[in-house]
Amino acid sequence: MATGTRSALLYSVSIIILLKISVFSCQQFSISFRQPSDCGVNSYFDISSLSCVKCGSNQVSSKSGLACECQAGSRVLVSNGVSILCQQCPDADQVVTQDGYECIRCPGTVGKDGKCQCPEGSVLVERDGNGNPLIEARCQACSATDPAFSAPDMKGNRCERCGDSFINSSQSCVCGTSNTLAGGMCFPANSLPTSVASSVIFSQLTLPVQSAWFSSFMYSSAAACLLFSNRTACQSLGNMCVMNMHSSSSINNDVCGLYNTIYRTTAAQGSSQDISYWRTNLPWLYYGDQPGMASQALQNEPLPVGFSFKGAQKNTNIELRAAVYSVRGEFLRWESVGRGNLQLCPDTPTRQQSAFKFGTAYKQSCVLSVSELLTGYPEPLFYDVFLVIQNSQDNRLLAVPLLNANQQFNGQFVNQGSDMSKWFLTRRLMLVDTLSGREKSISSSPVVIRVASDIKIGFQLVPNTQKGQVYPPLMSVAYSDIQIKDPSTQTVTVTFSVEYTMNQEEARIKTDIALGVLGGVAVVHSLLKTASWKRRIASPLIDLETIMKFLVFYAGDLANVFFIITVGTGLYWLIFFKAQLFVSVLLPLPAQEERFVVYVGCAFALKTVQFLHKIFVQLSVDVFFIDWERPRGKTTKHVEGSGETKSQASPVSIWRTYFVANEWNEIQTIRKINPTFQVMAVLFFLEVVGFSNLALRDPSSNLNRSAEEYTPPYSLILRYGVATAMWLCIGLIQMIFFTVFHERFVEDKIRQFVDLCSISNISVLLLSHRCFGYYIHGRSVHGHADTNMDEMNTNLKREAENLCGQRGLLPNSDTQTFQISITNRLRAQYDRIIEPISRRRGPSRLVDATANPCEQSTKAYHTMNRFLGSVIDHAHREMDYIVKDKLLFERVIGMEFIEPLDKSIFYNDDSHSFADVLFYGNEGVLLIFDTLFFCVVDLGKQNFILAAVLTYLQQMIFRLIRNGLGRRNLANKTLVDKRFLI
Amino acid sequence: MATGTRSALLYSVSIIILLKISVFSCQQFSISFRQPSDCGVNSYFDISSLSCVKCGSNQVSSKSGLACECQAGSRVLVSNGVSILCQQCPDADQVVTQDGYECIRCPGTVGKDGKCQCPEGSVLVERDGNGNPLIEARCQACSATDPAFSAPDMKGNRCERCGDSFINSSQSCVCGTSNTLAGGMCFPANSLPTSVASSVIFSQLTLPVQSAWFSSFMYSSAAACLLFSNRTACQSLGNMCVMNMHSSSSINNDVCGLYNTIYRTTAAQGSSQDISYWRTNLPWLYYGDQPGMASQALQNEPLPVGFSFKGAQKNTNIELRAAVYSVRGEFLRWESVGRGNLQLCPDTPTRQQSAFKFGTAYKQSCVLSVSELLTGYPEPLFYDVFLVIQNSQDNRLLAVPLLNANQQFNGQFVNQGSDMSKWFLTRRLMLVDTLSGREKSISSSPVVIRVASDIKIGFQLVPNTQKGQVYPPLMSVAYSDIQIKDPSTQTVTVTFSVEYTMNQEEARIKTDIALGVLGGVAVVHSLLKTASWKRRIASPLIDLETIMKFLVFYAGDLANVFFIITVGTGLYWLIFFKAQLFVSVLLPLPAQEERFVVYVGCAFALKTVQFLHKIFVQLSVDVFFIDWERPRGKTTKHVEGSGETKSQASPVSIWRTYFVANEWNEIQTIRKINPTFQVMAVLFFLEVVGFSNLALRDPSSNLNRSAEEYTPPYSLILRYGVATAMWLCIGLIQMIFFTVFHERFVEDKIRQFVDLCSISNISVLLLSHRCFGYYIHGRSVHGHADTNMDEMNTNLKREAENLCGQRGLLPNSDTQTFQISITNRLRAQYDRIIEPISRRRGPSRLVDATANPCEQSTKAYHTMNRFLGSVIDHAHREMDYIVKDKLLFERVIGMEFIEPLDKSIFYNDDSHSFADVLFYGNEGVLLIFDTLFFCVVDLGKQNFILAAVLTYLQQMIFRLIRNGLGRRNLANKTLVDKRFLI
Repeated sequence: MATGTRSALLYSVSIIILLKISVFSCQQFSISFRQPSDCGVNSYFDISSLSCVKCGSNQVSSKSGLACECQAGSRVLVSNGVSILCQQCPDADQVVTQDGYECIRCPGTVGKDGKCQCPEGSVLVERDGNGNPLIEARCQACSATDPAFSAPDMKGNRCERCGDSFINSSQSCVCGTSNTLAGGMCFPANSLPTSVASSVIFSQLTLPVQSAWFSSFMYSSAAACLLFSNRTACQSLGNMCVMNMHSSSSINNDVCGLYNTIYRTTAAQGSSQDISYWRTNLPWLYYGDQPGMASQALQNEPLPVGFSFKGAQKNTNIELRAAVYSVRGEFLRWESVGRGNLQLCPDTPTRQQSAFKFGTAYKQSCVLSVSELLTGYPEPLFYDVFLVIQNSQDNRLLAVPLLNANQQFNGQFVNQGSDMSKWFLTRRLMLVDTLSGREKSISSSPVVIRVASDIKIGFQLVPNTQKGQVYPPLMSVAYSDIQIKDPSTQTVTVTFSVEYTMNQEEARIKTDIALGVLGGVAVVHSLLKTASWKRRIASPLIDLETIMKFLVFYAGDLANVFFIITVGTGLYWLIFFKAQLFVSVLLPLPAQEERFVVYVGCAFALKTVQFLHKIFVQLSVDVFFIDWERPRGKTTKHVEGSGETKSQASPVSIWRTYFVANEWNEIQTIRKINPTFQVMAVLFFLEVVGFSNLALRDPSSNLNRSAEEYTPPYSLILRYGVATAMWLCIGLIQMIFFTVFHERFVEDKIRQFVDLCSISNISVLLLSHRCFGYYIHGRSVHGHADTNMDEMNTNLKREAENLCGQRGLLPNSDTQTFQISITNRLRAQYDRIIEPISRRRGPSRLVDATANPCEQSTKAYHTMNRFLGSVIDHAHREMDYIVKDKLLFERVIGMEFIEPLDKSIFYNDDSHSFADVLFYGNEGVLLIFDTLFFCVVDLGKQNFILAAVLTYLQQMIFRLIRNGLGRRNLANKTLVDKRFLI
Repeated sequence: MATGTRSALLYSVSIIILLKISVFSCQQFSISFRQPSDCGVNSYFDISSLSCVKCGSNQVSSKSGLACECQAGSRVLVSNGVSILCQQCPDADQVVTQDGYECIRCPGTVGKDGKCQCPEGSVLVERDGNGNPLIEARCQACSATDPAFSAPDMKGNRCERCGDSFINSSQSCVCGTSNTLAGGMCFPANSLPTSVASSVIFSQLTLPVQSAWFSSFMYSSAAACLLFSNRTACQSLGNMCVMNMHSSSSINNDVCGLYNTIYRTTAAQGSSQDISYWRTNLPWLYYGDQPGMASQALQNEPLPVGFSFKGAQKNTNIELRAAVYSVRGEFLRWESVGRGNLQLCPDTPTRQQSAFKFGTAYKQSCVLSVSELLTGYPEPLFYDVFLVIQNSQDNRLLAVPLLNANQQFNGQFVNQGSDMSKWFLTRRLMLVDTLSGREKSISSSPVVIRVASDIKIGFQLVPNTQKGQVYPPLMSVAYSDIQIKDPSTQTVTVTFSVEYTMNQEEARIKTDIALGVLGGVAVVHSLLKTASWKRRIASPLIDLETIMKFLVFYAGDLANVFFIITVGTGLYWLIFFKAQLFVSVLLPLPAQEERFVVYVGCAFALKTVQFLHKIFVQLSVDVFFIDWERPRGKTTKHVEGSGETKSQASPVSIWRTYFVANEWNEIQTIRKINPTFQVMAVLFFLEVVGFSNLALRDPSSNLNRSAEEYTPPYSLILRYGVATAMWLCIGLIQMIFFTVFHERFVEDKIRQFVDLCSISNISVLLLSHRCFGYYIHGRSVHGHADTNMDEMNTNLKREAENLCGQRGLLPNSDTQTFQISITNRLRAQYDRIIEPISRRRGPSRLVDATANPCEQSTKAYHTMNRFLGSVIDHAHREMDYIVKDKLLFERVIGMEFIEPLDKSIFYNDDSHSFADVLFYGNEGVLLIFDTLFFCVVDLGKQNFILAAVLTYLQQMIFRLIRNGLGRRNLANKTLVDKRFLI
């Protein structure tokens, strides 16, 4: 027990100890955050412990704050390189030497830093030649004239030879009053106009800024450039002109004016590299000042190399190289463009590099923080961009012209229009200028900064090239001026893009021609259809309904025309752009796709009209099931009450009719393809297999793309092309599968229905128009079908063994299905009989109000059954019919030539064209409608999945509507109770 | 005519001119590519024209190649700052002065550059104090001793005070032989061991490199650190230890050994910031050398702030700050980690910054080119990383420990195991070291470089925290050594990742418990099911089949258990991780998800077994349609040949049976939901609405993500959770919609079928087991159904007006559907009658070989029809049945308590449980199977679209199989010809 207590005690003690440790353990490894600027003037920042440590006596912290130094008037007594001891100089007239270790007396004045100071042109000497310290410092004047030409060096402790400009201008190291001292150099007076505006005008802010950089160096650069042909000075002057947006004015003299003055003055020096606009020693800034130079530079001659997307000669590499200059005019290096040097937005190198793959529509955009720009770009860099043209022997560089949207002439923006003849092309680009906007001094923070917020490189294809030739590229740049208010919250959006264009005029004209021609054909076809319709409804009048019908037919045909043209266009671009070896076509720009989208919209709208009309027509078709069965015996029936039995014909069972009606109801919406499978397969190929990647605006035809690659934007035309190609291909494959394989070896619902009619001894009369329709002859070859299983099986077996007659309407024929043109008389009789049935749906009338409508309609049913049966049996002489084949031409144009005036005409129709009143016979319309629906959704949202889901919903809804209303129509027309249509 | 000719001529001439222009226009704006290094020694690179220009006489190009300078022995005669004229010095004994403008005689030797050279300790004087040039230069010795302490300055033209280390060590500016001169400093001898290995061992290459940097500065840094407490020297020494991978050895003395020596020697100086491992003036490199420190530093106490994903106190910001040191030991700045400074892979700032959002699993990986690393990182930078803990008053910084995988002790890697107690934590990180691998000199190119190729920051959640508390983070780093062979083609893969973990042991245990408990329940349930099955097949024996059945039942139940557990787990993580306010759970790592995937796999495999078994059972169910119709009259039939008429009962039409069979065939595969809609809706919500974004490993629960954002990897568990949640929710909604709305107001296929039976006067007997099945009572209340339309309509109307009896089997009851337990005797009789039918499928026998099988089976059909009719009518005393209600408990466990020994038992069943032999009654199994199929595909490929497409295909295929085989079974069992089942 005692041991237990003790161990428990120990345990709790150890817990307490652990708790204490844990309380302090976080403290143990954490420190306060201090930085050098926090330490104040009497402490320094200890870089080892990252904390502030007090300085010793007579000490203050150094400028960096990382060490202590002796305060003014104190010298270093002891130092081991880190910690020091300081001592006040003993004598009052002593000051500390420059190195801080000794005290010394001064010959002249004492400077602000508490050290000796010598007058201008003199050096301070604190040690003798052998390094021995002097008691009193000396000031020694430097001999400024020949032969010494000496002046104090930067530190002011030694006489050195002074700058050449002083010696050249004044034969001395003193510039003198007759000369001009500017920018640390000495120039003869009046060599240049001095009344030059040194303000930079930030035109977007309408804010002129008196630039410290310009006022310090503009005059000296210009003068050194003009007088001494100083190349860095010339470059520096050019850079200032670029910072001034290449803008000049004929009224005021500004920096570009200075450049132009020098350009004109030095005409005698000739030009560099045989380029007439590139004056020797000057940077090349302008492509001349006459208008029209732009088109000469851009469209006169294609590049000597062609681009090719594929194959052994694949060449999609755009190599740009830039000569980089500092703002001071120094040449820094040649840089390959593409490592993000012109692309301000950070991104992975792979993505950034894809900007320079020919044919890849590249656009990179991001929002940059102004404070980061300020720290990242203290001084602008200047780029002279060239395109590398690789020859076998020599790399040539083609100057890439620059179109600066901010360039002004006399205050007018000259490059913002689209008229190339008014452009002034320039050269030399800068990205971020935080320098010219500094007002007080060069090291102050800027008032305004300028950012190249939109850089675009545009390539244009040579018309009708087969070798991938392009004109020299044009680089367009637009700068944004940002007034600095709160850099940490201010942002700027920058964009870098590469665009490829070709002249789309020809394609547009071809499309217009196709549209015109096909539109004309469509009119003719619609007129034919209208005429056929008129004949089929047996109405000669051209009334409003006719015109409406024509318009509807025309809508359908025009929809097909638009569909053909858009699919053709889509496939054209898909095949010709993606599969081309040498570049011969380039995609239309997004702005140029509008017309196409309108066409697709038209196709969809018109197709919808046609589709709805089809459904409406199908929903109002007249159907009647003719039962050939006749009673086989008598039924004895006990008359109630009287007890006597009455014999009557045993009723013919209605169940066969129910069965046929039920099946007819079920085949309303079957199609030649499986529509859901279609949607799924399209989705699978587009999104899983990756065909959607073919719609990207780049030359690659890879289906798989890694996430690391740059993803260019989609081309709407290509998306449409890929999507429709998928729809039509998969639709076609399905149709072939179903017609060739499935319907032959598995199940053919239409054929089954015709067989069922035959077996069940029921014929079907379909009247899709007033005097036109279809007839399925279902008279059983066995005479009776309303029988028990034994007999049914026997019948089926006999038929399988070919022991009975053929099923056709005509003797010894197999043709069971017919298109029928019926006479007006027959139709009138039909309408008369059907009237009580259709009246059920009409408004109630006073006459027959007492009669049971249900009884009336069954009576009408029996009458109709008898009547139609007798017509088919040629029992009515005045309503006889003939059977004949349709002419080939009649089939082609879908119109009957012979009007059924005297006799109705039954056309043999082995192709089951009665399916025209079902979905089955209109697969073309449905497939195109689905395709267009899918594509329209996709064009709107650029989302194939959404398009697939909505297309599925659309199919489902229209199927439900068609089924539901079709069932109602069937129930109404055939008197079969809805409850049996399940 | 003449004018025309002339204008044509002019036209052609102008074309020729244009052609000529165009031939030259490309030349016009293009130049040859030249760079300074191309120009050779006698030309310079003209920065203005970007071409090479020849130098004048006596001139050579300068070092930069951008200008000319006088060759050795020539002085500048005239210069305007750019172009110069040079002149050979006239006298043979003259050389050019340092500034190059004069000729002068030398006092001593002439250097390699053709200028005067003075002995060590002396300065060269070419001008007097006032700057006047001397005829002959002088060499003046600097006085090295007290009080001058002077030595020549860097340029060698002035005596200055020399370094403190010289003065302190030797009281002179000459170090002397008794002291050691190292790294430009002077130390007293024997202050440190000199036999220190200055080679860096790149252990991955087993290549020791004699490092120029180490041999130059190791000793001097160590000595200056130890003797003068020089802080930069101490940092520099520490940096070298970091470059040596913190590795030390107790045998050899290397740089970390030196550090440790100094660390021990300076113990008296105390520690910085109260951290005992941080010696004053030294950098903090190690967390002590005892084992177990790692867990103390990492798991002793959580951070004082908690992380929260949402709400007002949202805090997901991880702020890391690093003190950055140069390789020379200078403190450069404090840097916020996250602007890509530790992330070597370039990416957009937004994406890079998301590494520091708490809870976002971040991994960035890329391949970097070695040549770019060489130019981008000439010298390594060193980072001391701290975590910022924001208080109200003060920012505290918590030191982040570093686990260096490359650290060795006595040649053994100490940090590569997973056992925390063996780790040695360190501090200070470098990214790219191209310096230590330089062998010959510091400016030579390196032999080996070292890259931090894998940096991982790991956070661990405090167990059972509710406030989002985490332990201090651990930074793990692994370096790669790359031997430089061909930098332009060599690459290195670098990775930066942030990982969040919590102890998953508890979750695992809970899962195990749930699995155990539910597994036990499943066994019981399966046993019950097996018992029920045994009873239903009326077999008391426990044979192999019974065991197989039990296993199949158990598979189904176990599948449900796995499904419940996986869905529960998925939802748990989804809800608790994504919706938590304060962080209390963190996702399992991908490696920890394996178990979960195995569970899902088990669930799917077992469910498949159950599903296939269900289908198999459904496909072998016994069906019979009992026709209650009796003949109503006589038919007169002419007996062929004899001419006499024979009167026989008119046949009962089989068409009602056909109709019912057809309908039964059609409802085989209808379901309580629309399966395709289900797939589409799931796909829509996951991919279009964006629920799939919930499965990303980050705290965001936004459904929409912009492409610019960082996309973390998916969590498999969350994907499963989201997918199953979607499936079950949408399935449930569909089921509610169909049962509550659609089946009540639109269409209920099952109810319709029962009604149809009633109207068509046909009962359905279904035997799913040997002695168990279902009975649908379809005896028409009107006595006859085989009649014409008038009578049918009348019947329907009478029933609608409640003018006839009720449809139930018992008088005055409505119950038409029953579960039946039949006696063995009844079943035996059934089998006896059905035998001729089933024999059709069996092997042909010798007996009855002549009999027509078809006739036999129709005979059997009629016998069966009569027999079953009489049984239902209680006509067989020995096969009588009773009707009763099922007990609630019987319903619940799905088993009948009473064995039908004497009488069969008909249980009232209003819930249409005969649908159990259809898809309709097994919606649960089907839905779960579909869900699991979808999820398994998705877990395999992480592609919801593919999963949706395959699930659709799966549904379609199984529906086709079920329909096709079901139709065959129906045709076989009911003798209805297949051709009527359409």
